[in-house]
Amino acid sequence: MPAYKELSREELLALHNELELQFMEIKGKGLKLDMSRGKPSKAQLDLSMGMMDVLQSDSDLVCEEGVDCRNYGVLDGIKEAKQLLADMMEVPKDNIVIFGNSSLNVMYDTIARSFTHGVMGSTPWCGLDKVKFLCPVPGYDRHFAITEYFGIEMIPVPMTLTGPDMDVVEKLVSSDPAIKGIWCVPKYSNPQGITYSDETVHRFAMLEPAAEDFRIYWDNAYGIHHLYEDKQDYLIEILMECKKEGHPNMVYKFASTSKISFPGSGIAAIAASDENLVDIRKQMKIQTIGHDKVNQLRHARFFGDIHGMVQHMKKHADIIRPKFEIVLSKLRNELGDLEIGSWLEPRGGYFISFDSLDGCAKKIVARAKEAGVVMTDAGATYPYGKDPHDSNIRIAPTFPTEEELAMATDIFILSVKLVSIEKFLAEMGEEREEE
Amino acid sequence: MPAYKELSREELLALHNELELQFMEIKGKGLKLDMSRGKPSKAQLDLSMGMMDVLQSDSDLVCEEGVDCRNYGVLDGIKEAKQLLADMMEVPKDNIVIFGNSSLNVMYDTIARSFTHGVMGSTPWCGLDKVKFLCPVPGYDRHFAITEYFGIEMIPVPMTLTGPDMDVVEKLVSSDPAIKGIWCVPKYSNPQGITYSDETVHRFAMLEPAAEDFRIYWDNAYGIHHLYEDKQDYLIEILMECKKEGHPNMVYKFASTSKISFPGSGIAAIAASDENLVDIRKQMKIQTIGHDKVNQLRHARFFGDIHGMVQHMKKHADIIRPKFEIVLSKLRNELGDLEIGSWLEPRGGYFISFDSLDGCAKKIVARAKEAGVVMTDAGATYPYGKDPHDSNIRIAPTFPTEEELAMATDIFILSVKLVSIEKFLAEMGEEREEE
Repeated sequence: MPAYKELSREELLALHNELELQFMEIKGKGLKLDMSRGKPSKAQLDLSMGMMDVLQSDSDLVCEEGVDCRNYGVLDGIKEAKQLLADMMEVPKDNIVIFGNSSLNVMYDTIARSFTHGVMGSTPWCGLDKVKFLCPVPGYDRHFAITEYFGIEMIPVPMTLTGPDMDVVEKLVSSDPAIKGIWCVPKYSNPQGITYSDETVHRFAMLEPAAEDFRIYWDNAYGIHHLYEDKQDYLIEILMECKKEGHPNMVYKFASTSKISFPGSGIAAIAASDENLVDIRKQMKIQTIGHDKVNQLRHARFFGDIHGMVQHMKKHADIIRPKFEIVLSKLRNELGDLEIGSWLEPRGGYFISFDSLDGCAKKIVARAKEAGVVMTDAGATYPYGKDPHDSNIRIAPTFPTEEELAMATDIFILSVKLVSIEKFLAEMGEEREEE
Repeated sequence: MPAYKELSREELLALHNELELQFMEIKGKGLKLDMSRGKPSKAQLDLSMGMMDVLQSDSDLVCEEGVDCRNYGVLDGIKEAKQLLADMMEVPKDNIVIFGNSSLNVMYDTIARSFTHGVMGSTPWCGLDKVKFLCPVPGYDRHFAITEYFGIEMIPVPMTLTGPDMDVVEKLVSSDPAIKGIWCVPKYSNPQGITYSDETVHRFAMLEPAAEDFRIYWDNAYGIHHLYEDKQDYLIEILMECKKEGHPNMVYKFASTSKISFPGSGIAAIAASDENLVDIRKQMKIQTIGHDKVNQLRHARFFGDIHGMVQHMKKHADIIRPKFEIVLSKLRNELGDLEIGSWLEPRGGYFISFDSLDGCAKKIVARAKEAGVVMTDAGATYPYGKDPHDSNIRIAPTFPTEEELAMATDIFILSVKLVSIEKFLAEMGEEREEE
């Protein structure tokens, strides 16, 4: 098949008719598939069911440091959970604080605390005229929702294949004291699956922010979420890198076990410098008596150690990998030569990022929805939901079964083709009118 | 034994010597007891160990509404957990939102949200010159810590035997728009164990606040935490009462299962009007994808329903009641006639509140600590830790074993006697000097 742009009006019309018939047929099946979020599948959840048996009514729930996990006490996490998550996050155990079930909640609370109480003694952001955040795009909609909620101005920064465009980041961060942070998903990024290169991480560590309370919000959500055993991305550890470059306090690192054990019932953590953690604990001790230690103990005993967790992640990969391959091979086979979309082939994470022709993303998502496939809203990967090119679409292949996913991908591809043809036809129409 | 104030200097000195010997002897035992917090004992925690077996690796973790509790989804709590906590909090199921493990955290977040985003459209408190809270005293130190952390001016309101002095509350709330809230522990209050009378609750519901965003922070922490089956306090339900009086939005009600199942591993909730909950959910959906539904399911299935929970609480009462009686009978026997302290005999909750002679509380707590008994810091029951009379001491009898508690109470009573005698002697000294 030649690229669509080479086709004549007649060829496009004929093709459109043919594809529309296929679309109607598949639509008739009354499919109902939610691919809008990066949700693990039932098979993945089943992997962690052994966790339910780890603590029994006759178990000893005393943790290593001698504390009864069933009672109050231990503000920032039990030792064995800290060790496990520290290894997962590749930082020293003492540079970690364990929270509740959600790293998003930790990020929200971090912004909220900065807003009401500042950062290590800086002016609370609520007392400033203007607070800005850099947002590599496409990015994670829930990050953008937090900064938007606090009225923080979001400045998009283009992603490259090696991470955010660091020329832009450096220039903005060093010149504008209103810029207080940047949202990063540095490994298998959401939605593109890009891992920041060594150089990118190093340039992050060397940033010279105009604002003393500038922090890198390093959401390492997919740190051990590989798809392949033999093809893995490696990411330089940012805390150590910042420390080496004389900026130990410049980064907050976030992670959770949401996509390792159970979403919503995992444990989350922040990793940061000693001074940052002193600041964080000051607030934490006002906010809570402590998080769920029984669940921390459950996790620590189930996984045993980081090796156990890594082995566990291979089982996730075995379930997810074929799904990514279904989508990617279909995209390759069906759209490979048509020049109506582009995508990356990630080695991990939860998403495939698809870029349509300009001005087509919203229509494609609407089309797919017509046939019963709910995708993430087009635009969601940009601050304020505004994709300037209306081209980026996030594909989340993990939740459906392989069979459902194959159908959903067919629907998606048909939608891409139809909307793209309609774009070409419309342009031809305009050209005619202009003649 | 006559009241100490009747004793001569010589009698006091002789008594002091005798008590000092007793104190030295008991101190020599090297006791180490922490009575500083309202912590359940090991025996109480054991009551809920069955909860560990409720969900097993072969359990179906799908909740009533058909959602797999192991995955993302359901922002504000699964139906069965809502029903359980709604019954516990005596409100309709639809007026409840389930949170994480800590009602303190919910209260903190409520204040934080009001600070950054206002209350149902009101000016965010961070944009106001002055925000004030009423604090019935003695009260709960962790409440006061939250308002202090946000720079909110705390105005003490004296407690009476029927709740806060409502004349004072009404006058202040109706006249000062800077007053945005009042901290209440309406049943078996912390630390006095007082339950607000029907009239008090009714007067709360009839408040006409000067501030549109004034809210009653109704922390019903001990709603079903009775000591006796035959002697229970009853509390009018405040949400309904406020609704009846035309002020449906004036109250937030908080509770958790911390002292029902496991402190730190329970579930917490807020109950409020529809309009308040709309406001709360707006923020909640930015802050988190959802709280721990597996733990919600675990609680719902373990307790079954509110009747199961009430039966469960009787087992707690059977463990706690003898402890309260140990302390109360010792106080009665040893201090009953001495006129050096007063206390109430609560019918539920976690504390006994003791009032020493003015200026003695800090010294008594320090004395007890000398002999190995750590109590809540004197002053903690007042905003800013400042008890104007230095007289209130919170006794937390639940955590120690009965044997330990008996010893600890002996130490406490000896400390009260010694410090009181020292006060009388010092006063006699002063009088002499004045002569």
